[in-house]
Amino acid sequence: MSLTNPTEELLAALGADVVILDEAARFGASFDNARLSFMPEALVRPRDEDDVAKVLALANRHSVPVTPRGAGSATTGAASPLKGGWVLDMSGWKNLHIDSDAGLAYVQPGVVTADINAEAEKLGWCYPPDPSSHKYCTIGGNIACNAGGMRAAKYGVTRDFVMALEGFLPTGEWVRWGADLRKYASGYNLRDLWIGSEGTLGVITGAVLKLLPKPEARATFLMSFSNEKVALEASRAIIGARLNPSIMEFLDRQSVRCTLDEGLVLPFDTETVFAPALLLVELDGAADAIDLAAGRLEALMKGRAVAFRRAKSVDEAELLWSVRRKCSKAMFRIADGKLNEDIVIPPRSQDALIDFTLELKERTGLATPIFGHAADGNFHVHIMYRRRVAEECALAEKAVAELMGKVVELGGAISGEHGIGLSKTPFLRLQHSEAEIGAMLAIKRALDPRGILNPGKIFEPFRVWEHEIVRVTLPWD
Amino acid sequence: MSLTNPTEELLAALGADVVILDEAARFGASFDNARLSFMPEALVRPRDEDDVAKVLALANRHSVPVTPRGAGSATTGAASPLKGGWVLDMSGWKNLHIDSDAGLAYVQPGVVTADINAEAEKLGWCYPPDPSSHKYCTIGGNIACNAGGMRAAKYGVTRDFVMALEGFLPTGEWVRWGADLRKYASGYNLRDLWIGSEGTLGVITGAVLKLLPKPEARATFLMSFSNEKVALEASRAIIGARLNPSIMEFLDRQSVRCTLDEGLVLPFDTETVFAPALLLVELDGAADAIDLAAGRLEALMKGRAVAFRRAKSVDEAELLWSVRRKCSKAMFRIADGKLNEDIVIPPRSQDALIDFTLELKERTGLATPIFGHAADGNFHVHIMYRRRVAEECALAEKAVAELMGKVVELGGAISGEHGIGLSKTPFLRLQHSEAEIGAMLAIKRALDPRGILNPGKIFEPFRVWEHEIVRVTLPWD
Repeated sequence: MSLTNPTEELLAALGADVVILDEAARFGASFDNARLSFMPEALVRPRDEDDVAKVLALANRHSVPVTPRGAGSATTGAASPLKGGWVLDMSGWKNLHIDSDAGLAYVQPGVVTADINAEAEKLGWCYPPDPSSHKYCTIGGNIACNAGGMRAAKYGVTRDFVMALEGFLPTGEWVRWGADLRKYASGYNLRDLWIGSEGTLGVITGAVLKLLPKPEARATFLMSFSNEKVALEASRAIIGARLNPSIMEFLDRQSVRCTLDEGLVLPFDTETVFAPALLLVELDGAADAIDLAAGRLEALMKGRAVAFRRAKSVDEAELLWSVRRKCSKAMFRIADGKLNEDIVIPPRSQDALIDFTLELKERTGLATPIFGHAADGNFHVHIMYRRRVAEECALAEKAVAELMGKVVELGGAISGEHGIGLSKTPFLRLQHSEAEIGAMLAIKRALDPRGILNPGKIFEPFRVWEHEIVRVTLPWD
Repeated sequence: MSLTNPTEELLAALGADVVILDEAARFGASFDNARLSFMPEALVRPRDEDDVAKVLALANRHSVPVTPRGAGSATTGAASPLKGGWVLDMSGWKNLHIDSDAGLAYVQPGVVTADINAEAEKLGWCYPPDPSSHKYCTIGGNIACNAGGMRAAKYGVTRDFVMALEGFLPTGEWVRWGADLRKYASGYNLRDLWIGSEGTLGVITGAVLKLLPKPEARATFLMSFSNEKVALEASRAIIGARLNPSIMEFLDRQSVRCTLDEGLVLPFDTETVFAPALLLVELDGAADAIDLAAGRLEALMKGRAVAFRRAKSVDEAELLWSVRRKCSKAMFRIADGKLNEDIVIPPRSQDALIDFTLELKERTGLATPIFGHAADGNFHVHIMYRRRVAEECALAEKAVAELMGKVVELGGAISGEHGIGLSKTPFLRLQHSEAEIGAMLAIKRALDPRGILNPGKIFEPFRVWEHEIVRVTLPWD
């Protein structure tokens, strides 16, 4: 029998349970949460390491693109198989084991992030990284994008919890970086090079994660402020007082207004201005220490906050958090198109960012709601536009480019936790010099000489606006 | 004028204040704390980035080895200019600025590590990494070796605090990896590739370090145990109880005996067995929370510890810590030759390590005192021998190789915080597969095509025993 093409050869090697050619299945693997669809030739669901090795060996022999994928909740197109080829679906790899004596979690890439923390908490440990997608995103993708979350300022991002990775080099060789040990100083650190490389430098088949002792208690506080600058000054004062909040979320007036328009009522005792700017703060630690810190927090907010509320129960804390959780979707009240840019700025530039987004709103007529992680400077700046109004699309495209330029000018970063994928590729050269990109590409060529692994991502400018968005409802919609 | 060699060309370009040819100065730069001397052709003390760029440009043009260096306290020979060439002495680069609003320290590579924490503490922050050399080692070397210290299990190692690095690629191009931001997800992470690469992939000229709020209080506890295994079981129970100690140092009976022989008296209320195994524990956090945890710790030690003591004052805490601090030097009471291996093992293998070292002592007649960081498994295993007794040297050489093999067999790491340098090169291939080392070397070639930066380190097996040790007294002796 003569094998006419690489995909047929793969099918013959691994069988139809592993190599799926069905069009609907391939379509489902053709995009991620960015909804930029590129059809792969096959969807591959490897059963074990041997299958992965065979896929990569064949891909190298025939120069077939291979795009690793988990749940597909990436917001940047990082999991779209831009150049076709094979999608390597790791979402079925769901083993999770916690070593309670060592305080470590052993995970396969398809484990849902929230499940890691849930299992850890049963044993008195916790896994702090909590991207807002934690109930459906998978840890392999969290590692590939170095996902963040709300607790990053106090506890760090995904990178800070990955002790070891194992998997395959693009060439198909099995490797392990780091170990299930809390210290390790041997050879070059390719573990952290893989983390955040968005599936372009290796295929992760296993990880060891560090756990922390679960905090004894948590307390939630909601504060409202007359405007954004007062709220952000208050957030800096909280950091300045070394209160070290485990969460400190900021919501601007535009974001809050969307949520209130959905019918949510804020549990403030006093009358407050309509649609104020908010801070949502969580303190964690020993119960006594929290009470002490809560007193200091309330005193610090005197003269700053219009209203201050400590959640009196778990249910009330849930209500407070719902303000934050609901605002992202509530923004679609404004318009059906939303650009969500997870930029980072240093504390010194917060006021300048607010001025810029308000000026942008004024000038373009597009809403620019902002919320985000005030303690680490990672703000989600949104630009809202009507998809069917060509002029608004053009304005939004231009506005994003302006925003990115401004962010870098303010000493910031174009992405704090989503990564570059496809959608941020036009801005990469704002962030990095040619020497820096040259060094990155030299590493890519050194590790992936055939250029098979997730090609076209991060470095090649991609014109998002020229591509139709797939109209589908995803599990998290 | 015709320039006859690269060093003369460098001298002509930078002047005699920067390019030092004096033999005594070159000899001082010819070794580090491992005392393996290789004479460089010049000692270069760059004044600014321009000087560094010129050094690297010339070194690339003429293929001259360049070895970056700070205080030279490395224990592995990492800063020895093995292949001659030029030593790039960064120890004079001492700028230190703390941004108290952002909780960040901006440092040049020559800043002494303890000074960073001292300055941070004045502002209510702290810099936790505390290698035992912190009073004289410099931060550039800490970053190059990913230095650890006693507080790593709770707070992490140097890597966990480096937000950004700037400096030069081996080719002489200026780059910056990361930013002074608490989140960053753009492009490949070469920051963490530089960290721990022992000066072989780049020259660090500046770093931004994350600070943590200074703990409100600290408390010190000393406990003695009848033998090593009981002490280590107790350390695992402390971790199991989620007490999360900021320090948990273990000392075996051999180490303690050396210290007691120096005349130190342990402040135990009760009679204890002579030269017991010890745990030294520090708890930090809110004062009330510490008191609570101290009660739990004492209850947990009932039936485990022979004696339990909480330091009643800062002075008494100092006395307790002196047991740990003095034991390394006190070991020279046993013999004048000491091999100090900073191995790491997982909790499950602690008993097997103790069995192995006691068996090794029995079999070889060489003392094998161990102390180290019980919370992160990073133990300093020593092999003591008399330098002038050829038979003991041969036994010690063989014993180290056996130890390293055993450590890897037990799921451990050959280095937790010192790195590989020259002295651990014979064991690198115990830790890493050929595929892993191949990937590391591919990166080295991609970033340093002329192979000029700190050549001969990490990857090329070096025979320490064939080299005479320089007999000098260093600042920290």
